[in-house]
Amino acid sequence: MDIYEQLESNVRGYCRSFPVTFSRARNAVLTDTDGNDYIDFLGGAGTLNYGHNNPAFKEALIDYIQSDSVTHGLDMHTEAKTAFLQAFNEHILKPRKMDYKIQFTGPTGTNAVEAALKIVRKNTGRQTVVSFTNGFHGVTQGAVAVTANSYYKNAVGMPLPGVQFMPYDGYLGDFNTLHYFEKALQDKSSGLGHPAAVIVECIQGEGGLNAASEAWLLGLQALCKRYDMLLIVDDIQAGCGRSGTFFSFEEFGLQPDVITLSKSLSGYGLPMAVVLMKEELDTWKPGEHNGTFRGNNHAFVTARKAIETYWADDSFSKSVKHKAHVLRQRLKEIQAEHGGQLKHKGRGIMQGLECADGKLANRITELAFERGLIIETSGSDGQVVKILTPLTIEEDLLLKGLDILDSCIGDVMSELVSKAS
Amino acid sequence: MDIYEQLESNVRGYCRSFPVTFSRARNAVLTDTDGNDYIDFLGGAGTLNYGHNNPAFKEALIDYIQSDSVTHGLDMHTEAKTAFLQAFNEHILKPRKMDYKIQFTGPTGTNAVEAALKIVRKNTGRQTVVSFTNGFHGVTQGAVAVTANSYYKNAVGMPLPGVQFMPYDGYLGDFNTLHYFEKALQDKSSGLGHPAAVIVECIQGEGGLNAASEAWLLGLQALCKRYDMLLIVDDIQAGCGRSGTFFSFEEFGLQPDVITLSKSLSGYGLPMAVVLMKEELDTWKPGEHNGTFRGNNHAFVTARKAIETYWADDSFSKSVKHKAHVLRQRLKEIQAEHGGQLKHKGRGIMQGLECADGKLANRITELAFERGLIIETSGSDGQVVKILTPLTIEEDLLLKGLDILDSCIGDVMSELVSKAS
Amino acid sequence: MDIYEQLESNVRGYCRSFPVTFSRARNAVLTDTDGNDYIDFLGGAGTLNYGHNNPAFKEALIDYIQSDSVTHGLDMHTEAKTAFLQAFNEHILKPRKMDYKIQFTGPTGTNAVEAALKIVRKNTGRQTVVSFTNGFHGVTQGAVAVTANSYYKNAVGMPLPGVQFMPYDGYLGDFNTLHYFEKALQDKSSGLGHPAAVIVECIQGEGGLNAASEAWLLGLQALCKRYDMLLIVDDIQAGCGRSGTFFSFEEFGLQPDVITLSKSLSGYGLPMAVVLMKEELDTWKPGEHNGTFRGNNHAFVTARKAIETYWADDSFSKSVKHKAHVLRQRLKEIQAEHGGQLKHKGRGIMQGLECADGKLANRITELAFERGLIIETSGSDGQVVKILTPLTIEEDLLLKGLDILDSCIGDVMSELVSKAS
Amino acid sequence: MDIYEQLESNVRGYCRSFPVTFSRARNAVLTDTDGNDYIDFLGGAGTLNYGHNNPAFKEALIDYIQSDSVTHGLDMHTEAKTAFLQAFNEHILKPRKMDYKIQFTGPTGTNAVEAALKIVRKNTGRQTVVSFTNGFHGVTQGAVAVTANSYYKNAVGMPLPGVQFMPYDGYLGDFNTLHYFEKALQDKSSGLGHPAAVIVECIQGEGGLNAASEAWLLGLQALCKRYDMLLIVDDIQAGCGRSGTFFSFEEFGLQPDVITLSKSLSGYGLPMAVVLMKEELDTWKPGEHNGTFRGNNHAFVTARKAIETYWADDSFSKSVKHKAHVLRQRLKEIQAEHGGQLKHKGRGIMQGLECADGKLANRITELAFERGLIIETSGSDGQVVKILTPLTIEEDLLLKGLDILDSCIGDVMSELVSKAS
Repeated sequence: MDIYEQLESNVRGYCRSFPVTFSRARNAVLTDTDGNDYIDFLGGAGTLNYGHNNPAFKEALIDYIQSDSVTHGLDMHTEAKTAFLQAFNEHILKPRKMDYKIQFTGPTGTNAVEAALKIVRKNTGRQTVVSFTNGFHGVTQGAVAVTANSYYKNAVGMPLPGVQFMPYDGYLGDFNTLHYFEKALQDKSSGLGHPAAVIVECIQGEGGLNAASEAWLLGLQALCKRYDMLLIVDDIQAGCGRSGTFFSFEEFGLQPDVITLSKSLSGYGLPMAVVLMKEELDTWKPGEHNGTFRGNNHAFVTARKAIETYWADDSFSKSVKHKAHVLRQRLKEIQAEHGGQLKHKGRGIMQGLECADGKLANRITELAFERGLIIETSGSDGQVVKILTPLTIEEDLLLKGLDILDSCIGDVMSELVSKAS
Repeated sequence: MDIYEQLESNVRGYCRSFPVTFSRARNAVLTDTDGNDYIDFLGGAGTLNYGHNNPAFKEALIDYIQSDSVTHGLDMHTEAKTAFLQAFNEHILKPRKMDYKIQFTGPTGTNAVEAALKIVRKNTGRQTVVSFTNGFHGVTQGAVAVTANSYYKNAVGMPLPGVQFMPYDGYLGDFNTLHYFEKALQDKSSGLGHPAAVIVECIQGEGGLNAASEAWLLGLQALCKRYDMLLIVDDIQAGCGRSGTFFSFEEFGLQPDVITLSKSLSGYGLPMAVVLMKEELDTWKPGEHNGTFRGNNHAFVTARKAIETYWADDSFSKSVKHKAHVLRQRLKEIQAEHGGQLKHKGRGIMQGLECADGKLANRITELAFERGLIIETSGSDGQVVKILTPLTIEEDLLLKGLDILDSCIGDVMSELVSKAS
Repeated sequence: MDIYEQLESNVRGYCRSFPVTFSRARNAVLTDTDGNDYIDFLGGAGTLNYGHNNPAFKEALIDYIQSDSVTHGLDMHTEAKTAFLQAFNEHILKPRKMDYKIQFTGPTGTNAVEAALKIVRKNTGRQTVVSFTNGFHGVTQGAVAVTANSYYKNAVGMPLPGVQFMPYDGYLGDFNTLHYFEKALQDKSSGLGHPAAVIVECIQGEGGLNAASEAWLLGLQALCKRYDMLLIVDDIQAGCGRSGTFFSFEEFGLQPDVITLSKSLSGYGLPMAVVLMKEELDTWKPGEHNGTFRGNNHAFVTARKAIETYWADDSFSKSVKHKAHVLRQRLKEIQAEHGGQLKHKGRGIMQGLECADGKLANRITELAFERGLIIETSGSDGQVVKILTPLTIEEDLLLKGLDILDSCIGDVMSELVSKAS
Repeated sequence: MDIYEQLESNVRGYCRSFPVTFSRARNAVLTDTDGNDYIDFLGGAGTLNYGHNNPAFKEALIDYIQSDSVTHGLDMHTEAKTAFLQAFNEHILKPRKMDYKIQFTGPTGTNAVEAALKIVRKNTGRQTVVSFTNGFHGVTQGAVAVTANSYYKNAVGMPLPGVQFMPYDGYLGDFNTLHYFEKALQDKSSGLGHPAAVIVECIQGEGGLNAASEAWLLGLQALCKRYDMLLIVDDIQAGCGRSGTFFSFEEFGLQPDVITLSKSLSGYGLPMAVVLMKEELDTWKPGEHNGTFRGNNHAFVTARKAIETYWADDSFSKSVKHKAHVLRQRLKEIQAEHGGQLKHKGRGIMQGLECADGKLANRITELAFERGLIIETSGSDGQVVKILTPLTIEEDLLLKGLDILDSCIGDVMSELVSKAS
């Protein structure tokens, strides 16, 4: 690994936690160059909902490449783009009665968030966007402004105006955080003023697997309507099926004004990002937000295939919900084993266990890696062990991974006890 | 094309200029679904330096995919990443005696620029970055701040602090713009203060093919040293061979503190972006700037192949310089035909002709499309007809494209004359 | 009054509420050009704590002017400035064991706040200042940023970064707002980051006479220490005796890092403002914050006289506390008369009654003016009838003013009832 | 002077240059507590155009105070305010055919600038204000943003957006700086965008006595009209007669959209400031910009008296022009004596001599103080010895002061020569 030490910036992160070189990857298994297999509970940080190198997409992709079809298309019309749009319309938008325009942005989540922020500011003529404690939306300057974590914010070296943070659901214990938000909105002397919009994740991934309740989300949507603010749902991590439905807010009947999607949208781990916006908000002038790779046609091919394969009927959604249930049961059991020392978090296949602190959580994931399980932590102190395995993981592999996790937690907790005594 | 009208945001741009659906693409030829061929003088806006679907890269990419090698790797070590780093070190950095650290950012140019801006602000503890008139660096909030064009800036709906613009080489006719810059630096009452850094393109692509002179660039570098500012060269569009050498500043002996690369880096049109920074500037903490798709391994595969194929010796560079010479000759001839009405711009295979205004230039490129040539305009008013064809274009095709361009210019100029009379 | 209509900007305010021309003024009585007297419960918005044209100060001022002593002194040493500093030290700082440096700023409260904000940012190298809901600190750009009311903020036409608002004591009913503040400080993902300082009024004047409790203020000070933030108390309106002690925080034992004073500091209504800062915070370089009128020597003369006259012993403080008690009793009685329709607010001679809305409060103060009482409203909706009479008001005049107020409230409430029926 | 060392902040400035305690002051003479007289070439930094303690104003002020007329009036109507408005209208506005609304701001120049910036942003809905190299407009956050000197800007500890600096007249030698400004305005890719307004001083006081030419100022005004920007003239230091006419732009026929006045407006050195704005720009809502001391009636009394005494006919203006001519002659002679080592600057009674550097200029003013002349430096390096004596100075005293200055320059230059040899 000398070449990495020698050449790659100190900014590198995951390779420190998983210090091997990976060679092959299939569904929920990664294999290193020494032939060791690892169960993947990381899932490309939410990008590999359909597993590594999904065979159905792979075939379509190779066919596409072999035929010299357009790879790089800017925002010109191509057959791959047409087919993606048709599939997305047919299987995602229409069945959900969603009337939205699609904007293809530079193929990263943060770029989609940047575009979404521009849209809401353009349409309202106002600047403040309300974001929430523990929200994560990306690290480019506009997106990191609405990101709560000061680790990312401080790296900018600039103040980041145009955002006000409000406490997320549950942040103040039993106190309903929407009461504070509403009071600040109705009081012209609260310092909040009249925001352009609210940006929210229905399940906060990086923020520690906080899942907002249906009541809170519907209350937030009502607040947006009542106080004339646009609602952006950032569904980059929780979307594309991770919650059990395509959108994380589907079951609650939310109708966001703007939605961002990326990560698992292409299905194959290829860079792609879009913004969905209600038709009346599409006030863009041609090319006003551009980006060299907004027409990454390889991603369009696999994205279309993903949609056709998994979202033409509800069987996939059902299987995800089933696995989510299995996962929840198992995590609740583990939690029960360890008294009040762990706290179950999240929903869908986006669940985890909160430890007393980040050091503890880190010890668990380190041990897990030694035992063949790739899993990361999240939360402001890295205190939440976070399961984001491919939705397509085989159930027995899921259980095997959970067994490893259970054993690691057990051992780390025992260490703790023995140290204390 | 109904699906685009129905679903895609109004922000779409290129598809308005080239209103067909593209199907196949090989080197410098695009083919639409009706089987019509177009010579490509657009080159993916600088992303396709090695042509569409370059066969050498294609084969390597298909092999990689077929073997289920890692597609999406975050910043974990993979075989593809290792190989890319080795090739980049061996064929790009070492021969040029360049000691730089490489940061893999989210795979878009604008993301690399965002990271570069953070680096210079982190390292200096200062905020102002000097950018230049007609500079273009991207549309996310940090990058668009240092972008000069108000079309993009206004779309943000927020003020964009932390930047001061200076006139680029030639902006004030014979007046040496560095004199103004230096006066402002040495005078603590100029309003400029002490900038953290300067960001510059050696050839301004979007800005209208303005090529800075060697003397100006060296003067700028000297100014940076003298006044303790870091120098960022944004080589996203002019780099990767377009100027005739890998970096656009190579021949002038510039040693920027920070360099951004993207667009043609992957060679195949796949999203990829890196920041190169002098070792002492690599003060990043792990994960401080992250991004889901910073480990787009498909791009690493084709990028490595591109470097090994084209940069292991100087034959490619020579051929590019030859074609650039041919191009220059031909454009100078066309210019001569039309008296003072056209002005030659640019260098390398990044040249063009400046028209009296954007309307005229647009009429020329519209006509060119009708005649089978895809070419775009650039400059603040879109007044520059811009040639950014693949560097690998066959010479006869280059000449054929130039003939079409010549004929279009001739016809449009005649129209003009007949209208005027 | 034609000249005002013709020439003065629409921005004028008080003259709309009190549409007469005033001619003479003595202690708590204003006289208009028709010879009508008005009891003054406005007190120059907190500037006339010692009454209009206090005879003791007047004499000293006339003597000073007659002797051609220095009027305008920038920050040069003058006899008047020396004497002020000696008196302030002897009667204000020393008895309270306060070690502070004094900065003379441009002679307005907002200018003192601007200087205070610079000091805390300079000393910490951080930018965010936490301010509170309903806080008012001035209308220049730095001060209005930390002012909560959007009426003032919107007038700037610029975003106002560098501030985060927290809920003031009592803002969320029984929920202790410091719990939220502390959670946000200890959680690096709250979006708050590490603030440079907190700015707070112990009694919010413009904000509606909200008086923070001792426990809350001490809790806030402890939070500042625990999380390494500087504490600024803006005592511009509540200071100089209005609370019953010279500083509004004196009785609670607060030791702010920075204190701003203005309004009643000169005693005579003459422009003057200072910032007090702990010695170790005095990192100013000479002239770094300047201002043409920072040496308004007339104000120094009356300020010295005010300090010597009223603060050399505790008799004045006692008399203020007595009148504050009388005021409280009477307001509580009025409140009791009108069931739950009015709410007592404030402390010291900075008390009032909160009405259901601003329209009601405004009707009361209009009627009061017709009956010879000058009184204004405050609060985000102007819903609080606010008593800020000179501290030197004769007790019988205070009671007479309260009788008028009582009668006006009674009549307005009756109107309301008769309208409703 | 122990009390200053002990108590006053390190921010104090002038008292370091003139380390005595001043006691009396009459017209252009200051007297210290030891009875030493000093000729005043500082003039309260432009505040004492009519001299110290002008007897005519003094009498009016004492009468006003003795009669218990209103001292502190917020923006209520008072007899003193009415009389000021009438006099200002009669003798200043009407004879010059100027239709402006008057806004009384907090009584400092910086506060007037803050209000002016709000007005132009409110009226245009745009944010950028263009200011000039070496411009000085105050130190509160809005005003310091448009101030060029980084000494003041750095003290803020915040970035200061919403401003772009352009080179002032003469900044680039023979190159007409308006050409650059116009090019940047007409080029939408210059980075400048569409500014709301321009703020300019016709003679830059703090900036080093740079006097813009008539042609440049008229060109600037034309540019404002052509590119739809408002023109603010900050006449705080150069106004109230210092240039020889009441406004510094009068002779050139400029018609600014907004004008700021302060410093010598009250005549007596008392704090006062106003903004004049064309009637159609007066879009203020009541109280939107406020300030406790905006009704400093003592200043209104002396301001009225100053206008009636000096501006009812043109005799004062003529005498100022005469003295300015005398001053110019004498400075040109001194300049001639010292070859190319000194450069004459400025116009009106706002002239000076630029030295090679600030150290030299400082040595001259130090020596001058020893010899009984109070005079300061200005310019970005303090390199300009600056004469801002009262306009009412007796001609023989002016000449005496100039003799002292001449002798100091001679001695310092001789020192320099002897050191060098």
